[in-house]
Amino acid sequence: MLCPSLLLSVAAFAGATAAQGAPTYANLAVPTGTPIPGNYTGALRPQVHYSPPVGFMNDPNGMFYLNGVFHLYYQYNPTGLTAGNQHWGHATSVDGYTWENQAIALFPPAERVYVFSGSAVVDVNNTSGFFPDQDNGIVAIFTLAHYNEDGSDGPQTQAIAYSHDEGYTFRYYDQNPVINSTSSQFRDPKVIRYGDSWAMVVAYSQEFALGIFTSPDLKEWTWASNFTHHGLLGAQYECPNLVKMPVRDQDGVTVDEKYVLTLSVQPGAPLGGSTTQYFMGNFNGTHFSTLDAATRLTDFAKDNYAAQFFYGMEGNAVSLGWASNWQYTQQVPTGNLEGWRSAMTLPRVNYLTKAPRIGWTMVDEIYDPKPILGESLKTETMGNGRVTVDYSEVESNALYIEANVTGINVAKLTSFSTVNLTFKSPASDESLRSGFYFGGDSPFFVDRGLLRGFDNIFFTDKFSVADVYYDSLTPKTASWRMQAVIDRSMYEVFLDGGRHAATVLFYPTHPLTRVDVAAQDLPEGAQVSVAVWSLKSTWAGMANQQGTVLGNVTGTSGHATAAKKRIIYEGGFSA
Amino acid sequence: MLCPSLLLSVAAFAGATAAQGAPTYANLAVPTGTPIPGNYTGALRPQVHYSPPVGFMNDPNGMFYLNGVFHLYYQYNPTGLTAGNQHWGHATSVDGYTWENQAIALFPPAERVYVFSGSAVVDVNNTSGFFPDQDNGIVAIFTLAHYNEDGSDGPQTQAIAYSHDEGYTFRYYDQNPVINSTSSQFRDPKVIRYGDSWAMVVAYSQEFALGIFTSPDLKEWTWASNFTHHGLLGAQYECPNLVKMPVRDQDGVTVDEKYVLTLSVQPGAPLGGSTTQYFMGNFNGTHFSTLDAATRLTDFAKDNYAAQFFYGMEGNAVSLGWASNWQYTQQVPTGNLEGWRSAMTLPRVNYLTKAPRIGWTMVDEIYDPKPILGESLKTETMGNGRVTVDYSEVESNALYIEANVTGINVAKLTSFSTVNLTFKSPASDESLRSGFYFGGDSPFFVDRGLLRGFDNIFFTDKFSVADVYYDSLTPKTASWRMQAVIDRSMYEVFLDGGRHAATVLFYPTHPLTRVDVAAQDLPEGAQVSVAVWSLKSTWAGMANQQGTVLGNVTGTSGHATAAKKRIIYEGGFSA
Repeated sequence: MLCPSLLLSVAAFAGATAAQGAPTYANLAVPTGTPIPGNYTGALRPQVHYSPPVGFMNDPNGMFYLNGVFHLYYQYNPTGLTAGNQHWGHATSVDGYTWENQAIALFPPAERVYVFSGSAVVDVNNTSGFFPDQDNGIVAIFTLAHYNEDGSDGPQTQAIAYSHDEGYTFRYYDQNPVINSTSSQFRDPKVIRYGDSWAMVVAYSQEFALGIFTSPDLKEWTWASNFTHHGLLGAQYECPNLVKMPVRDQDGVTVDEKYVLTLSVQPGAPLGGSTTQYFMGNFNGTHFSTLDAATRLTDFAKDNYAAQFFYGMEGNAVSLGWASNWQYTQQVPTGNLEGWRSAMTLPRVNYLTKAPRIGWTMVDEIYDPKPILGESLKTETMGNGRVTVDYSEVESNALYIEANVTGINVAKLTSFSTVNLTFKSPASDESLRSGFYFGGDSPFFVDRGLLRGFDNIFFTDKFSVADVYYDSLTPKTASWRMQAVIDRSMYEVFLDGGRHAATVLFYPTHPLTRVDVAAQDLPEGAQVSVAVWSLKSTWAGMANQQGTVLGNVTGTSGHATAAKKRIIYEGGFSA
Repeated sequence: MLCPSLLLSVAAFAGATAAQGAPTYANLAVPTGTPIPGNYTGALRPQVHYSPPVGFMNDPNGMFYLNGVFHLYYQYNPTGLTAGNQHWGHATSVDGYTWENQAIALFPPAERVYVFSGSAVVDVNNTSGFFPDQDNGIVAIFTLAHYNEDGSDGPQTQAIAYSHDEGYTFRYYDQNPVINSTSSQFRDPKVIRYGDSWAMVVAYSQEFALGIFTSPDLKEWTWASNFTHHGLLGAQYECPNLVKMPVRDQDGVTVDEKYVLTLSVQPGAPLGGSTTQYFMGNFNGTHFSTLDAATRLTDFAKDNYAAQFFYGMEGNAVSLGWASNWQYTQQVPTGNLEGWRSAMTLPRVNYLTKAPRIGWTMVDEIYDPKPILGESLKTETMGNGRVTVDYSEVESNALYIEANVTGINVAKLTSFSTVNLTFKSPASDESLRSGFYFGGDSPFFVDRGLLRGFDNIFFTDKFSVADVYYDSLTPKTASWRMQAVIDRSMYEVFLDGGRHAATVLFYPTHPLTRVDVAAQDLPEGAQVSVAVWSLKSTWAGMANQQGTVLGNVTGTSGHATAAKKRIIYEGGFSA
């Protein structure tokens, strides 16, 4: 990670008058051993997405999956509402939606040193030597960002820490850094297993290059190759991720495996600020080569950055990203109104396929939402017409929606043929619009411009994506489908089974409580089916009797393994 | 070109009730020999940009420069306000800003055949044999798009036509097509001279490939290579352009030459709809190879598409594009209010350079605006503060603005340091906002969301670009500069001498007549200089005594060569 103006932000929370001061050594103010109380009931607080109890969160870090538990770490400033003072927060989940706050996993090791983004692996074979009696040792690999006394950037080096208790507590390796550097722009290592070796991708951010390193033991790293000047450059590269991913045919059968390299750019994305692109290719342990020279984006909106793939998914790829954008993340209204800023996206299941006509595509399926489905609020099939669901009584204020259109006679479509999904606040007359617009090569659009809870010069209103809806097998008829989650201040859409996806933040002044699905000017024979479910509030089950969800404590909801019971803080400060 | 729903559009103007009917043979309604009266006084009508007298315009075509005259052809529907019925309109200019309407240059050659986009060359050596006694013969190379009787797509083939009078009138070659095809997605040939040969790039649109062909005589073409799956794919490739371009160092000295390949995608651009990307590389007459695998965009907003480079600029590259986006071009309010749709961008001078840190960049300088400058309305130098110019008395309602900020002490910048340029309508309280925002890696932003003249689900409000403003030689201080033209419903900005550029359409309900330049929270020592000029109305000088500017007549303003006096219509119909 790199926040756009980290020093300004650090200074801002250290003291409003010292606008250009040096960053404060954070640990003095950080609750190292005491819980952080979180109120997850705010009108903007997502109910099925992860957000930190209080403070500022950015990139997901160190994600791994072990013994049925998803471990999510994240860039965390527990003492401020803007970036700075970076720790690794931690949360766990069994279902990918219901997250339990855990104790902060990595603290800054020294004054003017922050723990930036990185990854984690399960060192099953004890290659590191940290785990003589274990096959479940965890090693985190991350950037330590040093700042000089005058506040200017110092070197960014790669360091490791290890955990004997499946990732709940870590101890810094006593011979860090494992990759030294004099550069202040060298960060975000992601490590994967390749054969009998470890492979790391890490960003030389301002040189628009990724370094690929190898190691037998996670301690000694050897440079192997660079991958440079690919795709959109923006103003710098960040947060590379490399993962092996299944290639599936149109019937969903896995026919091959390829590697996907994701690469975030920030600032300078086409839509402004941050974005994530990906490349498909082959990886031989030391070199990544692309299948073609195309540039593809994970999302068509602007609120998904720095996504990681969970380590240890055994042939599957599951990812999630930071649901925000550096252009406005430090100004969004959740900070002043509710004391927190940023959530993660929903988890996505990723695979590669060759889509009709468009060719190679990474699919972003919504991770199975069944565990969080509440009651069915509506199931209806219609031609042209309208379905309205009042969800003001839904406690979570969150919905899961499926809409499918089948039997579209392509020759009879007009440029007025639309299926609109509009979420409204009858109280304030605000609305979040989205829909499928069959004119103009059938883009799907989202418009958050009719909400009034956030006025920011970079908070773009409208997003769209071209979606080729023709069914290649029966070109005279077409079908189209979407899945969506709306969650108080977040809207995530998955089109055509995940061929396109987007995460969109939105900020109403009053809760949206009504959804209209309206099909207009569809040709005769078209059938629209709409299904709407309420979603459970995943946080309600985490609250204590006072309604508070604690952070910075090792979770007790029982979904994790026995290891987490060992609440022994082993964090060291030997950078 | 391909309009997103060409058949729908053609049908729409052929008769509103026949929404799915076959395209009408356009020539029946087209004024082949009579003038088309144009009213260029409308409140939204640009005064220093080219727009057609009436009807719908899209891609620039056939652009060349000869004997001091810029020739601009364009995709033109003279009988409708949406795409369809494609002709080649024509206009000429000496200064790049003052355009004179000329007679329509290419008519559809047959029923259900339209003249799509293409290019033109000066056949100095009479390689074609069309010009036995001339060194100024013009050959146009373009796509003929055939439609079947049932309205479905027929083949797109490449054809040529030639002109003995420097491009005012054309005759179809009697052995067209010069490249045959059965594909309905093969279009937009751009031809350049390479050594003793001609080279063409042409799009296999839905295969995400460009074909490179060579020819000794513009008639016989041989396939040489393909350039496939580069950059952003969108849903199809269109309008490739290839040009040799000077490489200049930081002092402006030409040190090398490289080729630039531009490539438009539509639909499916990151910002929605249409966009143009470019690749820098080497060209050997048959193959184009890129310098790197990066993807770069010409603009940071969404209203510049299908740009061409003028043929015949002798070592310089001058381009202009279609200032619109297929997502909303057929709905913009100029159609119903004023009877025309679409303008071209301003001309831009292009060269390559290696920008500090960012590296290889194509620069888009504003073409010398001196000829259109009116009076100086304001010249002021200040620190923090505000300059206001009321331009309600400026007849053109168009301005040229320069703003320069020097001596910025980088260490003292805060995230509140801004230089804002805001254009306002005091009558309606609408505003067009833009400015330089030093927080967040210094993006420049434009916000057209506070204007109320156009409500469209794809008309995105906000654009921004990351601009690395640090002066590499003296990293502790920075400077920044912009040039801008505002022209009734068009705003074009050029940042840091053209390192970034954008064309932005906007639609106020009342004319914007006041501009505020406000510098806030700049560190001590920063100096802001602002200069504002009125712009002349280039169309006023073209109007007859009734105030009408005629189209579809060979121009008489005297700027072109003697050749244009030969008003002989030689257009044939032998497809």
